[in-house]
Amino acid sequence: MAHSDSVSVRVFSLNCWGIHYLSKQCGQRYAMIGEMLSKEEHDIVLLQEVWSEKDYLFLKQKLACCHPHSHYFKSGVIGSGLAIFSKHRIHDTFLYRYSLNGYPYMAHHGDWFGGKAVGMAILSIGSLTANVYVTHLHAEYCRDKDSYLPHRVVQAWELQQFIRHTSAAADVVILGGDLNMHPQDLGNRLLKASTGLRDSYLETAKFDGCEDGITLIADNPFISKKTLIPFEKGIRIDYILFKGSSKADIYCDFMSTTKGSVPDHPFPYSDHETLTAELRLEALTPAETESDRTSKNQDSAAGKVAELVDIVTEARTEVKVGLHCAERMRYTATRTGVMGLALLVLELAIAAVPWLALGAEQPFPRTSFYMLAALCFAILLTTSLLYIFYTMELKSLQGAEDQMRLAVGSLQEKLRGFPLAQPHSTQRKPPEGLEPSAFDPEE
Amino acid sequence: MAHSDSVSVRVFSLNCWGIHYLSKQCGQRYAMIGEMLSKEEHDIVLLQEVWSEKDYLFLKQKLACCHPHSHYFKSGVIGSGLAIFSKHRIHDTFLYRYSLNGYPYMAHHGDWFGGKAVGMAILSIGSLTANVYVTHLHAEYCRDKDSYLPHRVVQAWELQQFIRHTSAAADVVILGGDLNMHPQDLGNRLLKASTGLRDSYLETAKFDGCEDGITLIADNPFISKKTLIPFEKGIRIDYILFKGSSKADIYCDFMSTTKGSVPDHPFPYSDHETLTAELRLEALTPAETESDRTSKNQDSAAGKVAELVDIVTEARTEVKVGLHCAERMRYTATRTGVMGLALLVLELAIAAVPWLALGAEQPFPRTSFYMLAALCFAILLTTSLLYIFYTMELKSLQGAEDQMRLAVGSLQEKLRGFPLAQPHSTQRKPPEGLEPSAFDPEE
Repeated sequence: MAHSDSVSVRVFSLNCWGIHYLSKQCGQRYAMIGEMLSKEEHDIVLLQEVWSEKDYLFLKQKLACCHPHSHYFKSGVIGSGLAIFSKHRIHDTFLYRYSLNGYPYMAHHGDWFGGKAVGMAILSIGSLTANVYVTHLHAEYCRDKDSYLPHRVVQAWELQQFIRHTSAAADVVILGGDLNMHPQDLGNRLLKASTGLRDSYLETAKFDGCEDGITLIADNPFISKKTLIPFEKGIRIDYILFKGSSKADIYCDFMSTTKGSVPDHPFPYSDHETLTAELRLEALTPAETESDRTSKNQDSAAGKVAELVDIVTEARTEVKVGLHCAERMRYTATRTGVMGLALLVLELAIAAVPWLALGAEQPFPRTSFYMLAALCFAILLTTSLLYIFYTMELKSLQGAEDQMRLAVGSLQEKLRGFPLAQPHSTQRKPPEGLEPSAFDPEE
Repeated sequence: MAHSDSVSVRVFSLNCWGIHYLSKQCGQRYAMIGEMLSKEEHDIVLLQEVWSEKDYLFLKQKLACCHPHSHYFKSGVIGSGLAIFSKHRIHDTFLYRYSLNGYPYMAHHGDWFGGKAVGMAILSIGSLTANVYVTHLHAEYCRDKDSYLPHRVVQAWELQQFIRHTSAAADVVILGGDLNMHPQDLGNRLLKASTGLRDSYLETAKFDGCEDGITLIADNPFISKKTLIPFEKGIRIDYILFKGSSKADIYCDFMSTTKGSVPDHPFPYSDHETLTAELRLEALTPAETESDRTSKNQDSAAGKVAELVDIVTEARTEVKVGLHCAERMRYTATRTGVMGLALLVLELAIAAVPWLALGAEQPFPRTSFYMLAALCFAILLTTSLLYIFYTMELKSLQGAEDQMRLAVGSLQEKLRGFPLAQPHSTQRKPPEGLEPSAFDPEE
């Protein structure tokens, strides 16, 4: 099949681990990253954990020649940490902040302060419009007892919603980032099944990098071996995903990752490995589009929808676990607050006794009184703030669960109509723009 | 021009003023609203300020027959207050929470707790896909000295971004809600110029309602006359906006508002007036699409882009004012915090003197010591929370300003290319789906 137009696009992704004073060799690593990027001249560079705007500006200056277009996404207290550098003109950007992102009082984990989000940039690559997304989901600190799982599942849910709804006009879609999810994790399956995004590691014609494509590896000197248990060699949590549309096909010709060290340098670029994917974009003619879609539509649409129903149902269960947990936490905060209030009232009553019994000789225990009163106020204030926070968490979880329920209903409706709708659907206009994802309205 | 398909859609919008214990006759008004909606049987009902889920469930039960499909958008502490009821199947929903929405310590204004957002529902109306949006922006409490203006401008900016980016696959777009902006306010102009949305009040063939389409009127018994000064008769802040696409035209045949009272009832439905728009959707054939777009493209594209550049620049100025203000507030919080800390250190030093000078006879002023220490801690805690909050506000404002700068650059680039690009652009594929908005990538 001869294609009218073929463009090669090199995409790079790296979690830069850019926490000044906490991340080791931060400044030197940024210098190394800048040097490598300006040498490699990728088309699109997607960075995460660029927590300091100064580091972004340093890279921007360093890459001014090879990557004249860039954007730094700002969010949360510290920033979203997301940055994009591009050879191709960025026409427009948009940021979606995840509604859930950990807890502010878990300051040692720090995710809440990062204001995790997904950033979008619309690029023109040749005659094609590319929607490029960069994201970083909540970290997993303990796989066996992952208290952040409901939050990460909701983030994955919102990520797929954002990509599905904003990419209808795109010819190609590219997502890069640290998803903090293993390849078969619920959120990852949800993302891929609902958007139709394909994993460049699984799709690439040729691969050069760590075994199983792992991106957080034991051989990296910045990695503590303990954090990887029980995955001795490492885990794959960074991805470059992509999909084409009715107007362009996309293929991954080559993919590579670093392997824990950088030649001629004493340490690697980051605690994560770098990802580079060489994608080939092929513009389709309208005739090719039609034949492509028809065959694809008839292939396995019903199977895909059924699979998605199962995944969304699984995600709903996980969100319900989160709901139950948030309700319990809010209840605990309420109960503690009420106890603080009761203690304050009791204390005031006790204090009132000698004050009312004028002439009583006992000395008033001022120190204990003020200490206790201060403690009560601290309890009341803290529990009030926690109550507000947990209520917001509950609303977000309930909102996601409602949306999931509606989506499952909609998908099941579609599934019921399949035997009849299938021959009919090919006569109708294809849905705008994209490769079929199971969510596309078919009826 | 004969159209293959024409559908009539009646859209209703109302700010329900549903604050239990604060809003007057809340329960009775919901009963009235439910009764009216079940009688009128609009196609799409867009409600704002449904703060209690119970009220939503009451309406859902009441409207089960005529509006089998509905969705309640959850967000913030109290909820977003947004609800949609529909005769037509809702396939999918999505919620975007505005990054800025007032201040939590302005509890008497309450906007922050509402978690203002824009909700989207994707509906099938006949053969057409409609993206229906419902929103409620931050209230304006003082027009002369509106401290929330930067927040509302950022909300309008995010609203237009959300609509533009999510509606590419839609055949028609409908937005209803309480924008809390007058027709010529900056945010309103920004929204309309960037999305291409048209105002049903200005576009309607026939209108029945209050003079100038006002929706917050002096004749409404729930309205305090003071709040309307200097607009004696009232203001227009509720809207139903719409636009078609390359696949469907949309017209407003009739629009109406209530006029402050309801026949056979002692009081109106809400402190806002209701809006009803009768829209006519006409599906276009591909031939009509082509001729339509070409003529429209050549009409006044350059003028529209130039106008949008001016509006975005104006919005950027307003965001900069907000930035300046947030920086000042953060500085004040920092300074107060440092003073609190200094006071605490000073107090500890003073307390240490008699403790070190053993045998000193002066009695230690315990009461004052603990009172002052508690005050210092309260100051430190409050200023720390404020510092975090203002930093987040700054990040959001900076983020919006960055996006606006990028958009202006992109639009100016487009403008420079106009004399050359104009004849060329008609040969290229039309941008996906929608009526031309000045933001559509043309090159």
